[in-house]
Amino acid sequence: MSYTLVIHGGAGNITPAIMNATQEAEYTAALHESLKAGNSILKNGGTATDAVIAAICSMEDNPLFNAGRGAVFTKKGLNEMDAAIMDGSNLAAGAVAGVRNIKNPIRLASEVMLHSGHVFLANEGASEFALKQGVEMATDEYLFNQSRYDQWMEIRDTDFTQLDHKGDNLKGTAVPDTGHKFGTVGAVACDIHGNIAAGTSTGGMTNKRFNRIGDSPVIGAGTYANNATCAVSCTGHGELFLRAVVAYDVSCLMEYKGLSLHDACEVVVKDKLVKLDGEGGLIAVNARGDYELCFNSAGMYRGMCNSEGKEMVAFYK
Amino acid sequence: MSYTLVIHGGAGNITPAIMNATQEAEYTAALHESLKAGNSILKNGGTATDAVIAAICSMEDNPLFNAGRGAVFTKKGLNEMDAAIMDGSNLAAGAVAGVRNIKNPIRLASEVMLHSGHVFLANEGASEFALKQGVEMATDEYLFNQSRYDQWMEIRDTDFTQLDHKGDNLKGTAVPDTGHKFGTVGAVACDIHGNIAAGTSTGGMTNKRFNRIGDSPVIGAGTYANNATCAVSCTGHGELFLRAVVAYDVSCLMEYKGLSLHDACEVVVKDKLVKLDGEGGLIAVNARGDYELCFNSAGMYRGMCNSEGKEMVAFYK
Repeated sequence: MSYTLVIHGGAGNITPAIMNATQEAEYTAALHESLKAGNSILKNGGTATDAVIAAICSMEDNPLFNAGRGAVFTKKGLNEMDAAIMDGSNLAAGAVAGVRNIKNPIRLASEVMLHSGHVFLANEGASEFALKQGVEMATDEYLFNQSRYDQWMEIRDTDFTQLDHKGDNLKGTAVPDTGHKFGTVGAVACDIHGNIAAGTSTGGMTNKRFNRIGDSPVIGAGTYANNATCAVSCTGHGELFLRAVVAYDVSCLMEYKGLSLHDACEVVVKDKLVKLDGEGGLIAVNARGDYELCFNSAGMYRGMCNSEGKEMVAFYK
Repeated sequence: MSYTLVIHGGAGNITPAIMNATQEAEYTAALHESLKAGNSILKNGGTATDAVIAAICSMEDNPLFNAGRGAVFTKKGLNEMDAAIMDGSNLAAGAVAGVRNIKNPIRLASEVMLHSGHVFLANEGASEFALKQGVEMATDEYLFNQSRYDQWMEIRDTDFTQLDHKGDNLKGTAVPDTGHKFGTVGAVACDIHGNIAAGTSTGGMTNKRFNRIGDSPVIGAGTYANNATCAVSCTGHGELFLRAVVAYDVSCLMEYKGLSLHDACEVVVKDKLVKLDGEGGLIAVNARGDYELCFNSAGMYRGMCNSEGKEMVAFYK
């Protein structure tokens, strides 16, 4: 039986001009490590859901990515993280928004899916649930990252928020391109049982305020999985992805319009999102193991591996 | 030019057996009042978005409904409210989750849509934004309601949460049917300019914990609007509506499969949701002023009016 795993580490202004050889080597190693974590589960007959969690945990534990240990800072200097997981075999889903001091938010999302009776928990309430479930916590020191902190310091006294991989900001006025490129992480997988799953984890936008929630933890927007169609994880300008209900849109184009996985992803990312000025990308698989890595930005940290021994990582177009 | 306004005040186990003549008269008056508030805007050439807000504010201000003044109590004895609004003319959207001491959460959702640069704010952060925008606050006393409090007292020492209009609870063990029937509120409208909008507002589930977020404030799940297809507001078992991405599903069935508004609503509510055991209903309009009031539960508080002078309210099948 065959399996497929696809991952992303964020999309945006990722070009050879902003990456040196050391950085390229670091990201290459990090993406291979994430693929290895998921692959070891899939090759032993594990579930797509478990592989997605393992691949995402690997990236959450790596300060290179804007999730878990590498999460960016809010306006108040906090790390507030969002994550979601969905199991395409039964449409079970779990999500958390604005959680602090959680080592692996994707594991907390999984606990929500399996043990809360709910789908979506937020802020202190989600942390209280994490305590109850014995989910591993992390100190502020563990989650501290100097480059994220430096980037926050540059804009903390403004009203600007900063997207991953963008040299400008949401108010349209340029802020210095810090060169600190980072991103939301996600994974989608098809296991040997023919089940698929999707997960996404993020620290959101640097200098974000007001407990802003992006698309990552919203089922249908940043994350969606259904064995009958596809599993999708998104990364990009969350507000636009929320309004476009991106992940479920890919699924509906397949289910209702009969598009292939490839065509559905292309329509959503390169036509519909572009018209909304929604920069970013997504990864997707279906239950046959077909996969897509699709983005309308300059680049996307990404990788895939499968049961045929194929493995690749890439950054640029 | 023609216009249409449709409202709901929650779906569930609403039957003649649980309503007396006084209650029927109160709900009838409340629904007519909401329709009147929205109608007065639409007949004067106002926008669908403004009519939706006015109709929802009327229900938020009425303790009969589980939104605003009538919001239910959480496990900690608080009123935590969710709301969302979407403008089908430009796909702009705003939503808040877990907000306290806000008189009209739907107005705060509108402020998020228009002035935050974001789509979705939660908890204390959303309240901070409300303060900044000068959104009207309300005291705990204003939001206190004896019947909601009594219902909470009956289950506060359990782990149970209680859905609107249900005599049982989410853990499957029956709790006494208190007879306190109430519900999430919502409105959809088509204005004389041919624009449509949708909004939803709720107090969520009695005795809810962990800052649980249901479908109401999630764009695509409980609320969605797009001039090209439909405007939809949902009410029901939120977790199932989240997993089924209900509101956007109606839109996709129209856009990608060519279904009529009527057929799309029927497929989603009476086939797909039933298979998921997702009890509830929705209201919908399109830009031609066609409308639907569709539910798979025993009843739904609902009403509609239009530019032809038609006006109706109903509770039961």
